Amino acid sequence: MKPRWKGKGSEAKASSDPMSKIVSQLHSSLIQTETCGLLSSCSVLVEVDAELADLLNRACFGRPRITSEKDKQWFQLDMEETFYLCFSLKCLKVMGEDGSTKSNEELWEYFKSKKPVFPIHYKAYSHLRHKNWIVKLGLQYGVDFVAYRHHPALVHSEYAVLALPEGDNDLNGRLRVWSDVHCTVRLCGSVAKTLLIVIVNSNGLGANSPSCLEHYTVEERTITRWNPEQSREDQGGLQNQIKEGII
Amino acid sequence: MKPRWKGKGSEAKASSDPMSKIVSQLHSSLIQTETCGLLSSCSVLVEVDAELADLLNRACFGRPRITSEKDKQWFQLDMEETFYLCFSLKCLKVMGEDGSTKSNEELWEYFKSKKPVFPIHYKAYSHLRHKNWIVKLGLQYGVDFVAYRHHPALVHSEYAVLALPEGDNDLNGRLRVWSDVHCTVRLCGSVAKTLLIVIVNSNGLGANSPSCLEHYTVEERTITRWNPEQSREDQGGLQNQIKEGII
Repeated sequence: MKPRWKGKGSEAKASSDPMSKIVSQLHSSLIQTETCGLLSSCSVLVEVDAELADLLNRACFGRPRITSEKDKQWFQLDMEETFYLCFSLKCLKVMGEDGSTKSNEELWEYFKSKKPVFPIHYKAYSHLRHKNWIVKLGLQYGVDFVAYRHHPALVHSEYAVLALPEGDNDLNGRLRVWSDVHCTVRLCGSVAKTLLIVIVNSNGLGANSPSCLEHYTVEERTITRWNPEQSREDQGGLQNQIKEGII
Repeated sequence: MKPRWKGKGSEAKASSDPMSKIVSQLHSSLIQTETCGLLSSCSVLVEVDAELADLLNRACFGRPRITSEKDKQWFQLDMEETFYLCFSLKCLKVMGEDGSTKSNEELWEYFKSKKPVFPIHYKAYSHLRHKNWIVKLGLQYGVDFVAYRHHPALVHSEYAVLALPEGDNDLNGRLRVWSDVHCTVRLCGSVAKTLLIVIVNSNGLGANSPSCLEHYTVEERTITRWNPEQSREDQGGLQNQIKEGII
């Protein structure tokens, strides 16, 4: 399935403004401003100025929250986004309700307590983000994440992502019966996305600290419906090539 | 969601020709002709004359198989359909490859060996069939069955059905994580069906023989998306009623 750009010029606009550059600008700006977020249940609130708001928007981290203040804006980051900025990019600090700055280990424990599957989800999230995909939560499509080639204003999401642990240890997981596979593939088809399975292997290391993450390995698989009509060798094409003397 | 009849007159046609009557005619005809099916892997093949073919078609059991014979037709029944006609309606015999007639106990064991979840699926299937719903396999929608109010020629299927065992013993089952629930509900919505969960409680009786079935209990639940806009009290309607002096 090809990327579905939103309108003319979007593809050119995206390629002239690579996501890696935007994230790198965001990184510098967050470090320069020494930005600190506030932990609030399952998300983190960040107060930002106009420049940072623009960069967060363009890099697609978090969602703006409407407030009555004119000059300042608030952004709400979800758990994976927060941890990516704190742990992987090292450009954000997070403060707990008691006012103390949380270490990466403390955040890791906290996010795990809120969402036991966090280590697996985070590995999948950071794996795709490192490759400059925009990754957002995929709840409305019944998957863990959706992945965009560039900003959602320019392009539709291409992949519906399920992050699954390798092996049989998560019996509560997805795609364990055929009806679930059929259901997911059919839904992905109807919203023009390819189902991407990110299989995370923790290599028996557990998830005691975020330092385990670098030893986790990731395998990617796409699952698509096989259409015999479309997959059959294009006889017409072959015959035309013969006729035209190409073969 | 209301039933979606196919074209004008379909609803009247269905109500003048109740499914219970068609199934009862099929029942008499199968007994009279002493019909016997042939077990063939996961399905049963039945050779039928024109009258029986018509009744099987109208009652929506099996699918016709095209053959070169003019007068005789073959129907292919799936496991639940076969067992319903054999065990519940007692109007079909099934012969194994060795030519011997299979008892209900033998069929039960055979179907269980082909599909371990057969007892749960069969209970759900027979439960809905007893209430005169037409029940067909739901693989293409990623569910176990789909249920029609009357013949699929007259009406679209109304329910996408998942048959689930009560309790926590089937860790491989469906709807154990939110993303699966979201995925299934969204897919059902997009194909205009309501998700019907048939929860089968074996009451600790196991599945050693089909006689267990009568002690299984069934609970039905529908899962739908809750739309606050649609679910909110219709203020306009209420005010109009007050204006018109009804309240």
